[in-house]
Amino acid sequence: MTKFVLDERLARRPVAVDWALSTVLFVDDARFPWVILVPRVPDVTEIHELSAEDQSTLVGEVARASRALKAAFHPEKINMAALGHHVSQLHVHVLGRSKSDPLWPDPVWGPGERVPHNPVPYGDPGFEEALELLRAALEAG
Amino acid sequence: MTKFVLDERLARRPVAVDWALSTVLFVDDARFPWVILVPRVPDVTEIHELSAEDQSTLVGEVARASRALKAAFHPEKINMAALGHHVSQLHVHVLGRSKSDPLWPDPVWGPGERVPHNPVPYGDPGFEEALELLRAALEAG
Repeated sequence: MTKFVLDERLARRPVAVDWALSTVLFVDDARFPWVILVPRVPDVTEIHELSAEDQSTLVGEVARASRALKAAFHPEKINMAALGHHVSQLHVHVLGRSKSDPLWPDPVWGPGERVPHNPVPYGDPGFEEALELLRAALEAG
Repeated sequence: MTKFVLDERLARRPVAVDWALSTVLFVDDARFPWVILVPRVPDVTEIHELSAEDQSTLVGEVARASRALKAAFHPEKINMAALGHHVSQLHVHVLGRSKSDPLWPDPVWGPGERVPHNPVPYGDPGFEEALELLRAALEAG
C-alpha cells in the first residue's frame, strides 16, 4: 500500500488539528473562516473512492468542523465542497459565509483575491489569534 | 414534527429518483452532468444538523450519485458542494467536470449561463435522453 503524503500545495497551509481520518488545514483568509479536511488515505481523489467507513468518518468530521467554525466565528451559513480542479488529492473545503462577507452570494472559488490575516483587514483578529481560536473550537467540537 | 416540503425553487427540477434519505433532482444543463440531492428531513440547512445516521446515509448517497454520473457520462472529476446561499433548504450538488467543459477549472456556481439540453448544444443527447441515462445509472449504482 502506498504511504499517504500530503500534496505539497496543501502542505503550505498550517495544520490546525489531526483527527482520526483527516488532517485539518487552516486557510489564512481573513474574509472567511475556512478549513480544509484532507483524509489521510493514499491515492484518493473522489469521495466515492473511500471505503464506506471512511466516508462516514469524513462526513462526521465535516460536521464537527462546521460546528467548530460556527462556535468560533459565528458565520450565518456553512459551505462545504470537494472540487479538486487544481489539486486532485481528495480534500474538502468547509468554511463559513455571512451575508456581509465580500463575496456573498457568490462562491469563494471564483473571482476575488485572498486576504491574509496579517496585516489585519476587516477588524479580524490576526492570523495566530484566529488559528488559536479555531484550534480550541476544533478540539472542543 | 414538521413535515418535509421540497423548496419550490428546487421542486422546479425533475426528480430522477428517490433514495432512502434523499430525493435526487436532475439539473437540465448540457454543460455538466449534474444532480442535486435533497435529504427529506424538515427544517435542516446544514449537514451538521442531520443526525449522525443521516449524515452517513447522505455521504453514501453522494458516493452513489458520483459513481452513477461517472458511469453514465464519464466526467474526469466529480464536484460535490453544499452552499445554500440562495436556497437555504439543505441540498448537495453532485456533478461531473471535465477539462474540456466550458468553465474548467472555475466552479459552476459563478459566472456562466445554464445551457438547457433542448435545443441540443455540445452534441449532448437531449434532455429526456440524458435523464433516462442518468436514471438507469442511479438505479444501478
